[in-house]
Amino acid sequence: MVQRKKASIMPQSATQTTPLSIHAKGAVDAMVFGARGARLARLAALGLPVPLGLVYPPQLVDDIANGAPVAWPAALKGLVLGLRASPQQAEWGGPETMMPIGIAEDTLDHFIATLGADAALRLQLQCIRKLGAAISGAPADAIAARVVGDETAEALAPRIAAALAAYKADTNDDFPATAAGQLRAALRHMARGWHSASAKILRQAKGAPESAALAIIAQALVPECRTGRLQFTDPATGQPGLFGHVVAHGTKEPLSSLGEDICTALQDFDAKLTRGHSDACRVNFALDAAGKPWLTDVRPARRTARAALRIAVDLAGSGIITREDALLRIDPRSLVEHLHHQIDPDETRDVVTTGLPASPGAATGRIVFSAQTAMAAQAQGEAAILVRHETSPEDIRGMHSSVGVLTIRGGMTSHAAVIARGLGLPCVVGAADLRLDMAARTMRGPKGRIFSEGDTLTIDGTQGEVILGACKMIPPDLGGPFTVLMSWADSVRSIGVRANADTPADARAARTFHVDGIGLCRTEHMFFEPERITVMREMILADDATARAEVLQRLLPMQRADFIDLFDIMRGLPVTIRLLDPPLHEFLPNDEDELEDLAKAMNVSVAHVRARAADLAEINPMLGMRGVRLGITMPEIYDMQARAIFQAAVAINTQGGSPVVPEIMIPLVSANREVELVKERIDAIAAAVQAETGKTFEYKLGVMVETPRAALRAKDLAKSASFLSFGTNDLTQMTYGLSRDDAGRFMRDYVQRGVFAEDPFHTLDLEGVGELLVMAARRGRDANPDIVLGLCGEHGGDPAAVRFCRLAGFDYVSCSPFRVPIARLAAAQASILAERGAALT
Amino acid sequence: MVQRKKASIMPQSATQTTPLSIHAKGAVDAMVFGARGARLARLAALGLPVPLGLVYPPQLVDDIANGAPVAWPAALKGLVLGLRASPQQAEWGGPETMMPIGIAEDTLDHFIATLGADAALRLQLQCIRKLGAAISGAPADAIAARVVGDETAEALAPRIAAALAAYKADTNDDFPATAAGQLRAALRHMARGWHSASAKILRQAKGAPESAALAIIAQALVPECRTGRLQFTDPATGQPGLFGHVVAHGTKEPLSSLGEDICTALQDFDAKLTRGHSDACRVNFALDAAGKPWLTDVRPARRTARAALRIAVDLAGSGIITREDALLRIDPRSLVEHLHHQIDPDETRDVVTTGLPASPGAATGRIVFSAQTAMAAQAQGEAAILVRHETSPEDIRGMHSSVGVLTIRGGMTSHAAVIARGLGLPCVVGAADLRLDMAARTMRGPKGRIFSEGDTLTIDGTQGEVILGACKMIPPDLGGPFTVLMSWADSVRSIGVRANADTPADARAARTFHVDGIGLCRTEHMFFEPERITVMREMILADDATARAEVLQRLLPMQRADFIDLFDIMRGLPVTIRLLDPPLHEFLPNDEDELEDLAKAMNVSVAHVRARAADLAEINPMLGMRGVRLGITMPEIYDMQARAIFQAAVAINTQGGSPVVPEIMIPLVSANREVELVKERIDAIAAAVQAETGKTFEYKLGVMVETPRAALRAKDLAKSASFLSFGTNDLTQMTYGLSRDDAGRFMRDYVQRGVFAEDPFHTLDLEGVGELLVMAARRGRDANPDIVLGLCGEHGGDPAAVRFCRLAGFDYVSCSPFRVPIARLAAAQASILAERGAALT
Repeated sequence: MVQRKKASIMPQSATQTTPLSIHAKGAVDAMVFGARGARLARLAALGLPVPLGLVYPPQLVDDIANGAPVAWPAALKGLVLGLRASPQQAEWGGPETMMPIGIAEDTLDHFIATLGADAALRLQLQCIRKLGAAISGAPADAIAARVVGDETAEALAPRIAAALAAYKADTNDDFPATAAGQLRAALRHMARGWHSASAKILRQAKGAPESAALAIIAQALVPECRTGRLQFTDPATGQPGLFGHVVAHGTKEPLSSLGEDICTALQDFDAKLTRGHSDACRVNFALDAAGKPWLTDVRPARRTARAALRIAVDLAGSGIITREDALLRIDPRSLVEHLHHQIDPDETRDVVTTGLPASPGAATGRIVFSAQTAMAAQAQGEAAILVRHETSPEDIRGMHSSVGVLTIRGGMTSHAAVIARGLGLPCVVGAADLRLDMAARTMRGPKGRIFSEGDTLTIDGTQGEVILGACKMIPPDLGGPFTVLMSWADSVRSIGVRANADTPADARAARTFHVDGIGLCRTEHMFFEPERITVMREMILADDATARAEVLQRLLPMQRADFIDLFDIMRGLPVTIRLLDPPLHEFLPNDEDELEDLAKAMNVSVAHVRARAADLAEINPMLGMRGVRLGITMPEIYDMQARAIFQAAVAINTQGGSPVVPEIMIPLVSANREVELVKERIDAIAAAVQAETGKTFEYKLGVMVETPRAALRAKDLAKSASFLSFGTNDLTQMTYGLSRDDAGRFMRDYVQRGVFAEDPFHTLDLEGVGELLVMAARRGRDANPDIVLGLCGEHGGDPAAVRFCRLAGFDYVSCSPFRVPIARLAAAQASILAERGAALT
Repeated sequence: MVQRKKASIMPQSATQTTPLSIHAKGAVDAMVFGARGARLARLAALGLPVPLGLVYPPQLVDDIANGAPVAWPAALKGLVLGLRASPQQAEWGGPETMMPIGIAEDTLDHFIATLGADAALRLQLQCIRKLGAAISGAPADAIAARVVGDETAEALAPRIAAALAAYKADTNDDFPATAAGQLRAALRHMARGWHSASAKILRQAKGAPESAALAIIAQALVPECRTGRLQFTDPATGQPGLFGHVVAHGTKEPLSSLGEDICTALQDFDAKLTRGHSDACRVNFALDAAGKPWLTDVRPARRTARAALRIAVDLAGSGIITREDALLRIDPRSLVEHLHHQIDPDETRDVVTTGLPASPGAATGRIVFSAQTAMAAQAQGEAAILVRHETSPEDIRGMHSSVGVLTIRGGMTSHAAVIARGLGLPCVVGAADLRLDMAARTMRGPKGRIFSEGDTLTIDGTQGEVILGACKMIPPDLGGPFTVLMSWADSVRSIGVRANADTPADARAARTFHVDGIGLCRTEHMFFEPERITVMREMILADDATARAEVLQRLLPMQRADFIDLFDIMRGLPVTIRLLDPPLHEFLPNDEDELEDLAKAMNVSVAHVRARAADLAEINPMLGMRGVRLGITMPEIYDMQARAIFQAAVAINTQGGSPVVPEIMIPLVSANREVELVKERIDAIAAAVQAETGKTFEYKLGVMVETPRAALRAKDLAKSASFLSFGTNDLTQMTYGLSRDDAGRFMRDYVQRGVFAEDPFHTLDLEGVGELLVMAARRGRDANPDIVLGLCGEHGGDPAAVRFCRLAGFDYVSCSPFRVPIARLAAAQASILAERGAALT
């Protein structure tokens, strides 16, 4: 009954004023067919069964809105039609579907003959109900009650008469008596609806232009059919299979209810669809009375991030797309879903509040309000969620002991966020709606909800949500397709990806992610281990350089041991070690009890310790006595660190194998003289260690560019340094004059209101910070063509930043271990796009 | 006896190998004559009496060092000579003077005949003693005891024999028996001395190049003379007169002891010297036996800064130099000595410690440790020196009540420094050696010295010294020559000079310094008056925008009244008003008592106030929620300020006269969208005020460029703004990543060690911050050729910065009122230098 007819090739243009066949041969333009019309035409062109249909192109639709005559198309003679909107872009919406159309007084006999009286009259009443409601503006129920599938002709006849009467009473006009009249009325109604003021506002809010145009599809309905929707890959995993449902008599049923034959027929569509669309597809289908499937729409298959990766790898594996295309299809950011636990999408969430999604993944645990409690919980085998106003270096061990971290304050690059990302720990920061009452050990949320220490909480660091109770989780998956895609990425990328790794544990994690080296080892993180922090504090409290140097002698073997481990783990790969950066007061305890303990341990008065802490306190620590400023004013510290690095290199080199070439990096430089002064001493220490051990070694000295001035003076720096590594966290802070620790308070508001297009701590600010990067890279290279250029801020894991660095000629980016896969994929995409001609904008 | 002979013109070149006469005609080159030789030749060329002399040019001196023969020059026959080093630059030093030379066995009879036996033998013994010691290396006393003026020939003869014997015993050689032999020995000794390794190191430490060369002057001595030194202007004031001394028989006597005739003869030299050197001079003179004065050296007259100004104005007044040259001769920074009290240079200082010279001038007063005590002291008519760790806005009224300010912390642009400079109050900051004990109300200095509240202290803000007790002071002097020079400066300068003035009192001070307008009015300083701070705090504690707006309604009339005053005082001149900039927590009290008072006054719980204060606290307030970020997130505040400004403009304009055109400035911008959002609201408020009052007015909206990003994006900003004013304090902080409040701790060390060439908060960093300024100025002008460019940081009073701004095409600089004269002079110099072709480097 539904037939395919060969149509002649018809001219296509948006100003076309005759209907075009979906089955016409030739390229199909969505400007003429609309998006849906084009999809249908494509299905037809692939030789798949598509019900007969015509497209009324935009110009014709406009003409009809203005009163142009409409005839019943000869090609669709004897068919019941459905009319569907087909705007040029699917997301613009459009008028409601009109169906069935065409069972009028002049065609009723034909349908009674072909479908039987019951079915024909059911269709007729449906048509009056639907079209009548549309034309009159009255609710459909006011014209006729809903038609049930098993009503008989006898019961329907009086209802039809009543509906026609209701229509006439409402409109003072007769319901169209001919099929052509129905078609005209339906088309005109849809065309005028498209041009209504409210429809325009709605679609323009979705980004449609003033000129947005509508095509309308008139397509044969498969009468008395079952419809369904299916796809050929598992939406959750991407594995092949038949996934979907069928609707029979108004109820959803699994596909299996269709029986093996129909399922096989459906499965047979897969190859053509996939190859034809170069992607996994999802289709709408209708089964006619004979059980023959017809396709009524096609879309890309639904897929989670994990499924998307498998689909891309499988498509490239089957030769349907290239490996490059597979690499380009995956949003690098979506890889986090492979790396971390995710809350099962089917889980219902009792969301307490939201914050910033500071470190991806989800975790469930009991609320703890201090690092100590977190450690105690871990000791008892309990999972803990550490909740703090904000974290400080003292909390790091507590973070290690927790399964997730939640802070009230702070932005995307606050201490908690950076450390959590480094540890691969789910983290939500800046949950400003929460209030801590540390005395009562409770947390108050919106709507007066109170949570106590020990209550179970889930945090979703991917979404930034805080959820009451436990949630079902999907575990990480780094197997099969993930590994394959990563290996493809590595084979095409032309910019290095290193990891920011501070401890041997971090370095081991980094190696599992196949890094090209360590781009940033923050040595201060080595000082927070319990036996070290005490020595560190003793050093800080020392009265003069001599006393300081004595204490540093005790830190030396500890640092040396760290570096030996690090070099050993990273054998054959470069390791960049940043000299001590944070202000010394960060190492002192914050609370009065600990100050007293410290005084006791050091055998000095509490007043002395307090005075020293007050001496060291700063108004703006970010802009204070830190980085190379420490190195210049207390050179003993860098001396010790350099000695530890060189002795470790000698120790490793003595074991044979490829020699270690340590890269030493000076932080917070703002003037080249700072580099020269540090370099002089470090060179002297290298010479001393070589003389003492009788072993030679190579090393590199570089500058961490994190002040705007260092970027501006890159030419000078490049003469003293063998590498420049851009610390974009601090560089962003200083370029914007914006503290990452304090920005959390208004950043969300700023981004939502479009004051900043993006959080610049999350997405590299190409226009401001980016210009400094490009300027510094050019100046550095001009002065020293051999200089190695890297980026080691949080942005190393930002795909746009990786692309930017590739185009700006950087040698590597460095990011936290858990973002390494993202950077590797982004780097591959950057290389592919660069080869395909993308220019640096 | 000492004669002048006409010498022929001799060729001059550094490779000259014959001696040249000081009295030779023609241009004199210090490369040949050395600096001293050139000065003498110049005196001779002016027709002034100069004893006969020859210069041994560098090449000849080198030849002599290598053994070239030396004859007694015919031109100096029968004279006793003095040999003096004349290096090419005076500061390079050189070998010791050798004299007398030439009283040997072959000339003794001649000198006995002309001088008498006593004098001749005295000279002979002096010669053996001096030259002998130099040649042998033995101490002079080992060869002969000192010669006393009245020794007779009888007594001298055996001493001469003994001296010759001592010399022979020491050197195993005879002392030169001929005058020529003495001359050769003396020249050779001096020439070799110049080339010794230690002499080289010494002069290279003073900046001399490897090629530094020495000439030697051989000049007739005026025997048995009195010598003296004099200048023709008062070293302290610059007023004309004869100032100096004469040495007779080893004792210094006033010039008046010479009698009227000789004084008149000396005074007669003034006109030739001054005109010949285009400057006031200081000369060394010798009086021969007949009382005739000879000139033996000339230097610029000694002068204080005040004297220098009078001298320059007088020279220009006499037509000896041009007004432009007079302007160029005065170091703009030296003008501070006219503007403030200075400690009498003759005063002995008991310096307790030193800090940074944060605000010039000196003051004596009693130590007070709090703003309250300062106010109490003022009420009792006592002068107070306010001593604080660092000051905060709450201390401003206490600073007003003090005669000077001393802080332990802080740098050149710390709060205390900026406010003190604005008030013209002497201030020393960063006196890190001091320790405050607030409980005991004492201050501990180095060496265990303890000072109590009430002790008398003097601070010298020009030198950065803290002095125990009172000091005699020289009062400011803005009369006569100062006013004249300033009027000359204004007539040539081509860049505007505005003042940073926050209150009507500041504005009045600014007008007395003849400013071109107010370049920066920091509106927040208006909020610290007692009745206002309470309302301000109420606003901060308000629960929501509505409550906030209600409280702001009460601040509105106060701000309006301020602006009416300000516009009235500045009639006819532009006034740039910066909208609220500091973070709100700066307005909350710091101590617990005040918090309680506030809670009581606001009728809320202390816990509520404390919680709000904690909410507002920031880790890096400099990079926090301030400036336009406040304006965006709490727009009611800027709304109120804009309304107050516009209403004030209407009020003033209603009085007739030239209409006020307020310039409104948005602080801490980092993205153009911030400007657009604020501009929208301010434009709306202007329209509302115009509608409400029925009066129209003009206004300008501009951006304060103080983040590196704003400088980089100046092109965008220039499209929304009608002026860009560079806040170089914050721009310097952010470009260096250096907090001005925390830099004090190491800045002195950094500058002393040459890590930074200068304190960048004091002297504009041309290489870093300056590049951003030039870049932004160019980008701004490209986008909007009409844009007005200004600089309103502390550097507005830095002469180098003013010159830089003039060359970069800025329209004005703005600085604190007491630095306005400095900026006006620097601006004049910049214009003169620009016309003379100085290029922007």
